Amino acid sequence: MIRVPYEEMKFQFERVLRSRGMGEAETLLCARLLADTSLEGVYTHGAHRFPALISFIDRGIVDVHKKATLSASFGVLERWDGNSGVGNLNAHAAMSRAIELAKAHAVGIVALKNTNHWMRPGAYGIMAAEAGCIGILWTNTMPLMPAWGGLDATIGNNPLVIAIPSPEGILLVDMAMSLFSYGKMEGYVREGKPLPVPGGWDRDGTLTDDPQSILESKRPLPVGFWKGTSLALALDLVAAALSGGNTTADIRGMEEERDVSQVFIAVNLASFPDRTEIEARIASSLAAVNASQPIEAGSEVRWPGQNRLKVREENLREGIPTDEGVWKTILSL
Amino acid sequence: MIRVPYEEMKFQFERVLRSRGMGEAETLLCARLLADTSLEGVYTHGAHRFPALISFIDRGIVDVHKKATLSASFGVLERWDGNSGVGNLNAHAAMSRAIELAKAHAVGIVALKNTNHWMRPGAYGIMAAEAGCIGILWTNTMPLMPAWGGLDATIGNNPLVIAIPSPEGILLVDMAMSLFSYGKMEGYVREGKPLPVPGGWDRDGTLTDDPQSILESKRPLPVGFWKGTSLALALDLVAAALSGGNTTADIRGMEEERDVSQVFIAVNLASFPDRTEIEARIASSLAAVNASQPIEAGSEVRWPGQNRLKVREENLREGIPTDEGVWKTILSL
Repeated sequence: MIRVPYEEMKFQFERVLRSRGMGEAETLLCARLLADTSLEGVYTHGAHRFPALISFIDRGIVDVHKKATLSASFGVLERWDGNSGVGNLNAHAAMSRAIELAKAHAVGIVALKNTNHWMRPGAYGIMAAEAGCIGILWTNTMPLMPAWGGLDATIGNNPLVIAIPSPEGILLVDMAMSLFSYGKMEGYVREGKPLPVPGGWDRDGTLTDDPQSILESKRPLPVGFWKGTSLALALDLVAAALSGGNTTADIRGMEEERDVSQVFIAVNLASFPDRTEIEARIASSLAAVNASQPIEAGSEVRWPGQNRLKVREENLREGIPTDEGVWKTILSL
Repeated sequence: MIRVPYEEMKFQFERVLRSRGMGEAETLLCARLLADTSLEGVYTHGAHRFPALISFIDRGIVDVHKKATLSASFGVLERWDGNSGVGNLNAHAAMSRAIELAKAHAVGIVALKNTNHWMRPGAYGIMAAEAGCIGILWTNTMPLMPAWGGLDATIGNNPLVIAIPSPEGILLVDMAMSLFSYGKMEGYVREGKPLPVPGGWDRDGTLTDDPQSILESKRPLPVGFWKGTSLALALDLVAAALSGGNTTADIRGMEEERDVSQVFIAVNLASFPDRTEIEARIASSLAAVNASQPIEAGSEVRWPGQNRLKVREENLREGIPTDEGVWKTILSL
C-alpha cells in the first residue's frame, strides 16, 4: 500500500475521465465522489474500482454522455431512467431529486432504472443526511449468490443503505446482503489475507475463509443465512417494480452487470415540528451504544459511521492508502 | 403437540378477549389475526404468545379500550398514536391507513408511536399484498442484543417485513435482526431441542446452539454479525424519528416492553401503468429461484413465503399444532 494525496487522486481521476469524453461538470463530480470514497476508507469502492469503471466505459457498457431523465411522476414518487449512464452520477442525481421532493413534501422517492454500478452506496446516504434528511436506498445487482438451498447464483447482493443525520455525526449503515461484499473479498485477495470469519463456501461446498475460493464458487455467506437471500430478493423486486426496470434475473442474461434498478428515499427531518426532540432521542441512543460494556476491556463500542470523519481527516493528512499496482494502472489509463 | 381446530382456537381467543372487556369488533379481529398466525405455521407468534398478551392486558400495559388516533399529517406520511392499545389492532389500523393513502397517492406511510407488540409482523405485509400493494414495515423493540463489541443488550431485534404481491402468491420476508427471534428460541426450549446452527453466545461468551443459554445471556447472534446490529439500530431510529415515538433506548428504562414505534409503508402496484410487466418480471424471478440447482439432489429451492398457503391448508384440515401446556393455559384464562 502506498499513500496517495487526496488532490492527486482526484486529479488523476479527472484526467482519465476527461480523456473518455466526459463533460467537465460531470468529470469533477464523478472524480470527487470516487476520491471521497477512498478518502473515507472505503478503498474497495473508490480508487480500487476505478479501473473497472474505465473498462466499462471503454467497452460501451457505461455511456459517459448520457444523463438520467424523468420518465414518470406519481406525486412524491418519481421514476427516472438512467439511460445506461455513469452509475455514481445517476445515483447522485436521483438522490438530489429525492431530497428536493422531501423538502417539498416531507418524503421523496426516486426509483431509477437502466443505471450502472453506483460505486459506494453510502455516498448517497451521506448526501441525504448532510441535507438534514434520513436517506434509505438500495440497488439490485447481477446474480452474486445462490438462493438458500441452491448452488447456482440467482440472487444479487443488493446493498442497502440507511443514513440518519444527528448532531453527533451521521449514522451510516451500508451493507451488502452477503457477509462480505465482492469488493471486500477482492481486497483480501489482493492483500493475500484470509477473511476474519468464514465468508462462504468453496466449490466443494465447504465453509471457508479463503476469499479467492468464494469469488470462484459465487457462494458467499448471506447475512443471517436464509434471511439475507430472502431480503436481497425482496429488495431486488421492489427496486424493479418501483422503477419499472430490470430484476437481477433480467440482468442474469447479460454478459456484464448493466442497467440495474435502484430506489432512493429521503425523509426531511425539518418537516417535523419535534425535530429537536427527535435529535435528542437519536443522540441518547448513540450515547447508549458508546456506554455499552465492551467485550474486551478498554475497547470502545461504536455506532456505525462513528469513525468516518476520523478516517477522512487522517487520510487527508497522511494520504489515502492505495494498492500500488492499482495506482500504477490508474496512472497508465 | 396437539392439533387444535382453527375455529376452536379462534373461539377460545374470542372468549378470553371478551372476558377482558375488549369491544366486539376488536375481539373478532384480534382473535382472527392471532388464530391466522398459528394457522399459517408461525406458532410462536399466535397461540404460543396469547398468554403473554393476556398477561400484558391484565397488568394494564396493553389497554383494550384504546384505539390508534391520527396525530399529524404530512401528505402521504401520517403519524398515528397507538395510545398504548392492543398491538395487533393498532398495526392493522396503521397498515389499513397506509394502504388507503397508497390507493390515493401511489405511496402511503404511517408511522405509529406508543403501540405494543404487534404479534406476527408478516400479517400486515400480507394485508398490503392482498390489497395489491408492496408492504414494507418494521418495529423497534426493547433491547434484546448487545451492540457489536458490547456485552449488555442495548439494541432491539426490530423485525423487518417486505411483502410483494404476485400472481404466484405473496413473497413474504419477515425477519428479526437476530438470527433466531426470541419467540423461536423459546419454541426450541419448549421442545427441548438445540438450535439448528449456533444462534448466540452464552454468559461465558462461547458461541452456542443452546437456546436457553442465549435467552439468559441476551446475546443472540445478529444476522450478518456487525451488520445486523447496525441495521437494527438504524431501523429503530427511523421508526422513532418518523413517528415521534420511543427509541429502544427509551424503552430500556421501562420494566416491560411497551409503547414501541413502528413504520408501515404501502406502494400500490395498480398506480403503475406497467403493472402487468412488473408482475411478469416478478413471476420470472420467482421461477428462477425455483429453477435453481439444489444443494441436495431432489430437494426444492423455494422463495420466501412459497409454502405459506400449503401450511395454512394443512392446518385448516388437520388442526393447528399447539403445545399442550400452552393450550391448557389458554383454556384456563
